[in-house]
Amino acid sequence: MPPMSTMNLEEYAVSLGQAARRAGRMLSLTTGAQRHAALKAMAAALREQSGWLAAENARDMAAGQAAGLSAALLDRLRLDEGRIARMAAAVEEIAAQPDPVGQVIEGWVRPNGLRIEKRRVPLGVVLIMYEARPNVTTDAAALCIKSGNACILRGGKESYHSNAALGEAIGAGLRRAGLPAEAVQVVGTTDRGLVPPLLHQEEYIDLVIPRGGESLIRAVVAESRIPVIKHYTGNCHVYVDAGCPLELAEAVVMNAKTQRPGVCNAAESLLFHREAADRLLAAVCGRLAAAGVEIRGCGRTRELFPAARPATEADWAAEYLDLIIAVKVVDTLEEAIEHINRWGSHHTDAILTTDVGSVEAFVAGVDSGNVMVNCSTRFSDGGEYGLGAEIGISTDKLHARGPMGAADLTTYKWIVTGRGHVRT
Amino acid sequence: MPPMSTMNLEEYAVSLGQAARRAGRMLSLTTGAQRHAALKAMAAALREQSGWLAAENARDMAAGQAAGLSAALLDRLRLDEGRIARMAAAVEEIAAQPDPVGQVIEGWVRPNGLRIEKRRVPLGVVLIMYEARPNVTTDAAALCIKSGNACILRGGKESYHSNAALGEAIGAGLRRAGLPAEAVQVVGTTDRGLVPPLLHQEEYIDLVIPRGGESLIRAVVAESRIPVIKHYTGNCHVYVDAGCPLELAEAVVMNAKTQRPGVCNAAESLLFHREAADRLLAAVCGRLAAAGVEIRGCGRTRELFPAARPATEADWAAEYLDLIIAVKVVDTLEEAIEHINRWGSHHTDAILTTDVGSVEAFVAGVDSGNVMVNCSTRFSDGGEYGLGAEIGISTDKLHARGPMGAADLTTYKWIVTGRGHVRT
Repeated sequence: MPPMSTMNLEEYAVSLGQAARRAGRMLSLTTGAQRHAALKAMAAALREQSGWLAAENARDMAAGQAAGLSAALLDRLRLDEGRIARMAAAVEEIAAQPDPVGQVIEGWVRPNGLRIEKRRVPLGVVLIMYEARPNVTTDAAALCIKSGNACILRGGKESYHSNAALGEAIGAGLRRAGLPAEAVQVVGTTDRGLVPPLLHQEEYIDLVIPRGGESLIRAVVAESRIPVIKHYTGNCHVYVDAGCPLELAEAVVMNAKTQRPGVCNAAESLLFHREAADRLLAAVCGRLAAAGVEIRGCGRTRELFPAARPATEADWAAEYLDLIIAVKVVDTLEEAIEHINRWGSHHTDAILTTDVGSVEAFVAGVDSGNVMVNCSTRFSDGGEYGLGAEIGISTDKLHARGPMGAADLTTYKWIVTGRGHVRT
Repeated sequence: MPPMSTMNLEEYAVSLGQAARRAGRMLSLTTGAQRHAALKAMAAALREQSGWLAAENARDMAAGQAAGLSAALLDRLRLDEGRIARMAAAVEEIAAQPDPVGQVIEGWVRPNGLRIEKRRVPLGVVLIMYEARPNVTTDAAALCIKSGNACILRGGKESYHSNAALGEAIGAGLRRAGLPAEAVQVVGTTDRGLVPPLLHQEEYIDLVIPRGGESLIRAVVAESRIPVIKHYTGNCHVYVDAGCPLELAEAVVMNAKTQRPGVCNAAESLLFHREAADRLLAAVCGRLAAAGVEIRGCGRTRELFPAARPATEADWAAEYLDLIIAVKVVDTLEEAIEHINRWGSHHTDAILTTDVGSVEAFVAGVDSGNVMVNCSTRFSDGGEYGLGAEIGISTDKLHARGPMGAADLTTYKWIVTGRGHVRT
């Protein structure tokens, strides 16, 4: 690939796509053992170069501090030798997962003797756009290599030097294992003008995964000619059914809201069946308030828990990612389901109940990728499900829904075998 | 739904989407037995109203004749009582297929006791855009109802009255079975201005399936905010490997090219390994020519079969859908794979060989949805694979690749069941 400086952004987008397509075709012919060795070499290269990686990261940190990034953003951006060692260990964990490539998903023989086989194969080339989180660079690269895909990685501009250095280390590991360094390409510019031409490379790129704010994702969907799997954040609900015991409601609601409020699977809305509200609402809201959570409630909630502030429609739709929760009392389970389908984000919603009929109705009626029964929304996670590392949590319905692991970065081929069969 | 005449196109698109979403939510709560009964009632309504349906179709036929439609298009447009009876029988065949909804795709228990289940559920609402083929109206409606989805159907403008009448009959059948008629909505206008606002209803429509010409599909992809599964036609190859016997090459090539040349799984390009070319090219091309096929060949082809016309690069990319074939001699299997990946349409490609190593390399190297080994490309079809009726043949890699049956109109939910589990 010629140096980026000699090309305009359009040409650079094409050259990234073409190099990725070539590398992807080579990767699709590798064995699982070769990809495993490449991941081990990537992890080793990260460890060996951790001093230099931390130094390059320090350039981003200095620029971020000068630009006044928040402490939370700076913390996500920061790399030190300990964090780099954990990133390398995560790459090795992905290496240790089962190989999804080549799996026979289904197969049978037709009455005429034709053998039909549906075999799992890599997608080809994946473009991932994400925030200023350098650990996503190594996780995404490792998941793509594991599943036999080439990838193009575009992280947040605040992490530019960190990602460039990580890309060098990853490339060194790939070459050492005999794979093309272009299998993982970190975008070599922070210019946003590259994004539209990249999203037009449908000939060379098979999938786009945008992570980040809703407005960014909507802009990608509007521009892209490549299929997109969206990763919106979550407006997750916990519904406390009639008859729910106090201990169940308190334990799960507290965990779902307060254990890590800034993540997409934290609860943002709490619904009580009116019977449960009368028994439990004041106690549960009291526990939340004592933990520093601001309660924004409907009229009935405020009667039962007068410290609540009044909720507006904006609260039913809100993803606070903070110690705030919207609380509403509903007359029936059906009203809870309708509320969730109308205002939720189809990410993760939970029911707390002792009634089997309520479980059936809630699971069938809630149109969300993850439906939790008597457990915290915080379990909505590829690691917690046992999928290993995840590339993210899809809020789409097509191809992959919910936590996406390495197998979700594959497609399949139909392989049809005859002995001179012709159609009549 | 208010009559379309009182709304502008934007409002009409929203009203179609909202009505479909409501109907889809109701359908998602039906049992397989209810959907089976609805399909039987749809088939019965088609049979009962066949006289009226044929009369409405006659209006389209008269307009088509006046507009000078080709005989082939008029034949695809025409409905008579026999064809309506076959459409009703096709609906009953779809009814008889296994129910994909509710299938547990995977499931396990985590070490902490959480039960994880991945359960197949309907997508919700599917928009299908297609040519002036009234049988697609009933097939698509039946596949969507079978899989628990509501659908919005927009057929070619030449079939407007036929589709409106079919929509009435389908709606009557649905109501008779207690399902909402809005589960199948036939678009009530031929105005192309409806298409952009329809493709912006991502809140109400989950999937768009455009069928038809490449330019139409590209326009849909550029405009749509809803995920699209593309159904391009196919530039299908047959590769004749070194050592291939004459009988195998003759039988499969003749079938792939001439059995039904106007369909997407007919062969358009023929590649010979140079060893096979020396032995077989003249005989195979002679058989094709005798069957009325025009041969367009590379230089080596024309040396071996002088009656061939010279091929240009446009021929390597062409989808003739006619009695024409492009023929090229390659030096190696690898060159054949490169040619197919460069010029093909990733639809269906075949190898004819006696060598197991060639099979392995071809299956691994060709980046197509369907790879045929020692059989005709014409088998690339949902019915031939045993999937039952198909909504089309996806040339995409995401979600569904190759023939798409009712199961490909579903997604899944993760259902996670605990006993008060919280995350620590």
